[in-house]
Amino acid sequence: MSPRGRRPAGADTRAEIVAAARAEFAERGYGATSLRGIARRAGVDPALIHHYFQGKQQLFAEVIAIPIDPEAIITGILATPRDRLGMTMARAFFTIWDSPDGKVRFLGLFRSAMTHDDAARMIREFLAAEIFGRVARAAGGQERTAREADLRGGLAAAQMIGMATLRYVVGYPAIVEASAEDLVAELGPTLQRYLVGDNLRGPDD
Amino acid sequence: MSPRGRRPAGADTRAEIVAAARAEFAERGYGATSLRGIARRAGVDPALIHHYFQGKQQLFAEVIAIPIDPEAIITGILATPRDRLGMTMARAFFTIWDSPDGKVRFLGLFRSAMTHDDAARMIREFLAAEIFGRVARAAGGQERTAREADLRGGLAAAQMIGMATLRYVVGYPAIVEASAEDLVAELGPTLQRYLVGDNLRGPDD
Repeated sequence: MSPRGRRPAGADTRAEIVAAARAEFAERGYGATSLRGIARRAGVDPALIHHYFQGKQQLFAEVIAIPIDPEAIITGILATPRDRLGMTMARAFFTIWDSPDGKVRFLGLFRSAMTHDDAARMIREFLAAEIFGRVARAAGGQERTAREADLRGGLAAAQMIGMATLRYVVGYPAIVEASAEDLVAELGPTLQRYLVGDNLRGPDD
Repeated sequence: MSPRGRRPAGADTRAEIVAAARAEFAERGYGATSLRGIARRAGVDPALIHHYFQGKQQLFAEVIAIPIDPEAIITGILATPRDRLGMTMARAFFTIWDSPDGKVRFLGLFRSAMTHDDAARMIREFLAAEIFGRVARAAGGQERTAREADLRGGLAAAQMIGMATLRYVVGYPAIVEASAEDLVAELGPTLQRYLVGDNLRGPDD
């Protein structure tokens, strides 16, 4: 249905907000989508969205059918002592991936990103703005440029996206057979160096 | 056409060998495909395959339309001093990816692996046997178990597959904008630690 004008909250209002968000994210990408635009498309008051969702991130997670709240996870990662950031972030990913239906949902997400430019755009913007770039910016304090933080976040993203690809999509045997803890033990120091290490040769050097 | 029995070398023999190889790799996967089986399917003598191709690796590269000879590249990597293995391997990947049509060809390959189980199987077996696992086994000398070498190779594969995914498929901005040399400078130490470092917590610990 296509509601005319604003309408009160109803049993299907939540579903209509999600449908409107899906359409907006697909049309505009993650970065350019606003809660106001979603509300307009759904024919509801913007304040009503906050009745159902904490914000754009959680709505995006709902649209891409990931059963997690990114904000809660990132807040947990950022509360970790700086010298354990890499390990904590690596462990968080396996916790998400190994959640109920995690593998199936991420498989769908990955395949969409690989085969549809719209999906790739939404997902890369979400990863850069809300996950990897955000942790890298927070880890660097004041003295890190946005550009360096973005590159650091991208290196961490490459490591974890590749891990998920081999473990859940392509099925690389040694990676499938390893325990999550063994993989975390190896990936943690890599993420630590990318996110926190001093020695990054930045793009401006 | 479907030749009956063995036939002499002709103008289209090379193309028929490639077509037979494509069918065998798809049916059996990389590991279980033999030059003998390809020859049988193509209706040629196995020796004739060696007239056109150096072996199974090169035939696989032809089937997946990668304009490289994996053997030459791996031989070059293995000839590098052990303390520069990570940098050399990281640099070799960008050289391949930045070769003529490299991006387009790898995009096709990645999308196949993401969406077709047959392609995923061929590619993961090829990567494990001939690229990452092979370098990890060679880098470890005698004292490394096959299982540890395979895990080390898998970690390196995850890093490089993720990098290719973000740079060429998903288009993660900070990774697209970085120069190949800047990325090599960051990825080299990661590959070095995975392939050569002493401190791997193996799956048997």
